Amino acid sequence: MINFTVGPVQSSDTVRAIGAEQVPYFRTAEFSELMFENERLIKKFAKASGDSRVAFITGSGSAGMETAIMNTLTAVDKAIIVNGGSFGHRFVELCELHEIPFSEIKLQPGKALKTEHLAEFEGKGYTTFIVNKHETSTGVHYDMQLISDFCKRNNLFLIVDCISTFLADPFDMESLGADIMITGSQKALACPPGISVIVLSPRAIDRVERIKCKCQYLDLKIALKNAERGQTPWTPAVSILRQINARLKEIDANGGVEAEIARTAALANYFRSKLAELKLPYEIVSESLSNAVTPLHPTTASAYDIFLKIKDEYGMWICPNGGDMKDSVFRVGHIGYLRKEDYDKLLDAFVDLKKKGCI
Amino acid sequence: MINFTVGPVQSSDTVRAIGAEQVPYFRTAEFSELMFENERLIKKFAKASGDSRVAFITGSGSAGMETAIMNTLTAVDKAIIVNGGSFGHRFVELCELHEIPFSEIKLQPGKALKTEHLAEFEGKGYTTFIVNKHETSTGVHYDMQLISDFCKRNNLFLIVDCISTFLADPFDMESLGADIMITGSQKALACPPGISVIVLSPRAIDRVERIKCKCQYLDLKIALKNAERGQTPWTPAVSILRQINARLKEIDANGGVEAEIARTAALANYFRSKLAELKLPYEIVSESLSNAVTPLHPTTASAYDIFLKIKDEYGMWICPNGGDMKDSVFRVGHIGYLRKEDYDKLLDAFVDLKKKGCI
Repeated sequence: MINFTVGPVQSSDTVRAIGAEQVPYFRTAEFSELMFENERLIKKFAKASGDSRVAFITGSGSAGMETAIMNTLTAVDKAIIVNGGSFGHRFVELCELHEIPFSEIKLQPGKALKTEHLAEFEGKGYTTFIVNKHETSTGVHYDMQLISDFCKRNNLFLIVDCISTFLADPFDMESLGADIMITGSQKALACPPGISVIVLSPRAIDRVERIKCKCQYLDLKIALKNAERGQTPWTPAVSILRQINARLKEIDANGGVEAEIARTAALANYFRSKLAELKLPYEIVSESLSNAVTPLHPTTASAYDIFLKIKDEYGMWICPNGGDMKDSVFRVGHIGYLRKEDYDKLLDAFVDLKKKGCI
Repeated sequence: MINFTVGPVQSSDTVRAIGAEQVPYFRTAEFSELMFENERLIKKFAKASGDSRVAFITGSGSAGMETAIMNTLTAVDKAIIVNGGSFGHRFVELCELHEIPFSEIKLQPGKALKTEHLAEFEGKGYTTFIVNKHETSTGVHYDMQLISDFCKRNNLFLIVDCISTFLADPFDMESLGADIMITGSQKALACPPGISVIVLSPRAIDRVERIKCKCQYLDLKIALKNAERGQTPWTPAVSILRQINARLKEIDANGGVEAEIARTAALANYFRSKLAELKLPYEIVSESLSNAVTPLHPTTASAYDIFLKIKDEYGMWICPNGGDMKDSVFRVGHIGYLRKEDYDKLLDAFVDLKKKGCI
């Protein structure tokens, strides 16, 4: 099977080999060293300030999102949430559950965030801005410079879910003035799912120190305290943290985050240009694409049926959408260990489906 | 390195081989089937009633403990917590954080729970009993029959942390009348850490349905809803769930839970009898041993120094204790993929340390 979903994605041989090793005991100086290195490289690739910190939570990206909300916001905040799809909607649900006052910028699927969306929130006493830099469900990549300028002007605390865009599109945490960046092990980090990574600016750390978190497991105060000695408060997914370490070093050795972004962009561009040449009955449905994924609307067949056929008849996974978009949109990912030849196979399968009259 | 800690423990070759595979996409009928099989085998080995359900949470055993507390108890409950070590103490912290009224049965390290400890709580309006069946930090295995009789007599909701004892010591969820059983992937399930497993009786499911959980990520209502179709609400640690599946089938094929418990008991007995023969300066410090671990107090040296020496000079991990017991107790585990020959090597190392005058 070739995996073109947006997570879990394919891993390198080095990362996979670690998966076959016995998991070492981890309350040791050796594991602490590895965790310090993970923190250092994540900060380097996120372009976080030197005094930022990193927490590694055993859980999904959604656990990371909730951890950020629970540890840095309270009922005295007033947040703006960009809600352009399922992951924006998740932040809405989380603010409702945790009783964080908020307003939504509701965007139609595929639509970009523009200056006019922000205008009405200017100077209105908001404290916080929450955004999924890449709304993975619809494949829309928001303009972070626009958001950053708005947040700086209004002195907003800025929470950025970079789960599917970290290492796939440029992100400069310090220059954007972002306070929290969230990612996950199974996206462009290209490791198995199970670890969420949270980078905190000094301003975020200060909020964590002041706010009482109502969940012990997701309490960043406890996590950061343990991270001082390179440890986690609870037994973490040790094997995945070791795989993350290998992967971060792999990226570092191969030219760093810029080279990794360029590699991903080249794959995305290759797929998109070939797709255009082949004149398949698919429309790209995002106004603002990330390098991580191409969201496609098939105009002649059900998107979910195409997903099933590609899986069962061609041995490849493309990424189905859920909910309302199940039949209208599927996505093709460009993160993880993929090569141009893999896309050639996928495009051949699409052409074959067209020949058979299935699309 | 040979790993005698109580988690992460050593995995079988089959489980390790899965760790080297690419992680498959999981929103598929194939993965749902695997999850249904995981649920069926966990229920079988826990001897849960047919109408029990299982949730798989991506997180540590502590995440499982907190999930149980947050989803089934409220401020109108009145709980009894057996607190005989760090894991009993964790339940105390969790009930404090989540404002669940409780009383503690505080036991000294190494001490068993006895009838007289329960007497004062008889008929006093308690609703709930919370216990770590095996207090892993001190190696004390509590008498579940005593607890079960008390709970039945007083109609108590019974939460049992079986994290380090599941598959190592007998446990019959239905006949004991236990409502929640918690375990983790990295103990006798002998998979990498990252998944916590929670089995719920019909009475527990009913509580989950009625209670509003204040954490979305740990909300069992959402988890159980998704589990109806063999799925999880958030991207789970797919690779570990696949490893759990292989391991459960391995146990099933090799004679089931009884055979696995007997295998572990044989290893524990082998180590303990050889240890006695060698007259090493170690005292067993538990009144009631689990098959999972042997807690030892070295009478002539620091326990932590022995841990470091065994790690750095002999290439083996024994399990250090934390906090007050750091220098007085270490533990030798019997769960995971271990053989008698491994214990021979450990015992040889102990003898060697004695020869050198280190113990």
